[in-house]
Amino acid sequence: MKEPILFWPVFLKKNQVFILDETLLPAKVSYIKAKNYHEVVRAVKEMKTRAFGQVLAFFNGALLALEQNKNKKNLENILKKVMSDFCNSRPTLPFGAFRHLVNSWIEKAKEKNLDLYAFIKKNILGFLENTKNIALKRVQEVSEIIENNDAILTHCNISGQLVMIAQLARAQGKKINFFVTETRPYFQGSRLSAWELKKAGFDVTLICDNMIAKVMSEGKIDKVIVGSDHCAENGDIANKIGTYQLAVCAKEFDIPFYCLTQSLGKLPKIGADIPIEIRPEKEFLFYKNKRFAPRGT
Amino acid sequence: MKEPILFWPVFLKKNQVFILDETLLPAKVSYIKAKNYHEVVRAVKEMKTRAFGQVLAFFNGALLALEQNKNKKNLENILKKVMSDFCNSRPTLPFGAFRHLVNSWIEKAKEKNLDLYAFIKKNILGFLENTKNIALKRVQEVSEIIENNDAILTHCNISGQLVMIAQLARAQGKKINFFVTETRPYFQGSRLSAWELKKAGFDVTLICDNMIAKVMSEGKIDKVIVGSDHCAENGDIANKIGTYQLAVCAKEFDIPFYCLTQSLGKLPKIGADIPIEIRPEKEFLFYKNKRFAPRGT
Repeated sequence: MKEPILFWPVFLKKNQVFILDETLLPAKVSYIKAKNYHEVVRAVKEMKTRAFGQVLAFFNGALLALEQNKNKKNLENILKKVMSDFCNSRPTLPFGAFRHLVNSWIEKAKEKNLDLYAFIKKNILGFLENTKNIALKRVQEVSEIIENNDAILTHCNISGQLVMIAQLARAQGKKINFFVTETRPYFQGSRLSAWELKKAGFDVTLICDNMIAKVMSEGKIDKVIVGSDHCAENGDIANKIGTYQLAVCAKEFDIPFYCLTQSLGKLPKIGADIPIEIRPEKEFLFYKNKRFAPRGT
Repeated sequence: MKEPILFWPVFLKKNQVFILDETLLPAKVSYIKAKNYHEVVRAVKEMKTRAFGQVLAFFNGALLALEQNKNKKNLENILKKVMSDFCNSRPTLPFGAFRHLVNSWIEKAKEKNLDLYAFIKKNILGFLENTKNIALKRVQEVSEIIENNDAILTHCNISGQLVMIAQLARAQGKKINFFVTETRPYFQGSRLSAWELKKAGFDVTLICDNMIAKVMSEGKIDKVIVGSDHCAENGDIANKIGTYQLAVCAKEFDIPFYCLTQSLGKLPKIGADIPIEIRPEKEFLFYKNKRFAPRGT
């Protein structure tokens, strides 16, 4: 199966990090070519890439910095600066856990007197491959949970994985269709999920975020599947605003609720320990430079 | 207390029906001047006015038709055509109940051999005055339920009544603030409620429709107050999409939920008997001519 572009939207090629500019979707499929890790951090901060794309951005940004500084004596400090810059870019993401992971590799390399560049590079590549395999395995597993004639409601975008699940389910002979919330304020549901599912040939009904209880009450939804930005040891998950009331409604109408998540490194104990990002208000009060709401709110 | 413009947005003056064009708010306060009832019906269909404004549009449209045809022999048929045109304009509204009401007046006039023009006019004016008095009394009552330091969450727009409630509560020495959902797809929350509450000097926090559970879970909401387009004998209410999950969330977080409603004429037995309007998809897929979502969804 061909991987959807949103499944692996960031990669290193020819000494540049290619970053799928998700803000231009669905109108245009275009990649930002970052020439150094600073440009990768900026793309994360400006949400040019998001969700799993940011995980890839972190590690590919680190790989690029490794390549560009492999002969430098202060490679360790450079790496630490890279990780610190990513951690300061957006709070909710598990960048802190990744820093912890890479730091443990650095310590190991020093302890065993290994070549830092080669060791870190090998570990990052191994980590990415392992992550991909986990995702592919999970996609396969979830596709087997899907039943024939299921109507699946999703929120935001699960980085191409929902399309892969859907394609696998279809290959297993199951007919399925989707309800997608538009996902205010950034419309990842309309712009990304509805787009990629439609492109893959699935029937998609787009709904406002406030229509969930209504479609559920009418018996139109069989399952809810969402992704997550982060999770905690106790099973709490952090995902796009709106996921909470989607879960409350699923509970009210007794509809199975699935969340795709994985532990990338050390987890916080409970959901409340996950810092939640407060984004600039203009992302909500404006859309394509048109103002939605009165000043002063 | 000065009545907010959204409280009585449609009125007859100088042989024209003045209709506040709510689609231009908050950028511009402007009235459509309808020269005949057809233009009033069109304004309803195009949602230039909404909610209680449509009730006023129905009766003021009928008043205008009465004035313009008072000497015609077939006044009864003209009136019936007016009502039929309103009933065909938008389904969820209680226009059917109003037709029932006006028809009962027509029958009475015929039975008692009264002048049809004078009798219907007197009854419509009486009905409007009575409706206003009920609304003013209810506004007073609700203001007394409000407690000091209440944070009130609202959805869509209650035709100026929430501002009046808030002003009365403030006059009673209570400090209150508001959370307003933007109310997709037509943004009546951002454009109307946030605007009129802000203009009246209240602190307003605008949230996406999908942030309800989050702000409720954080203990930020003390009461929910919404309006209704229609209600049923069993207490079911019909209101803007999104009201259902607002109620589900209020139940989950044990927050008092108030709905302002009144029986304008004969009611359906249960909520399921209220026809729900399906509006054109372009109102959802576009905003100010900018497309939100991929084709084919």
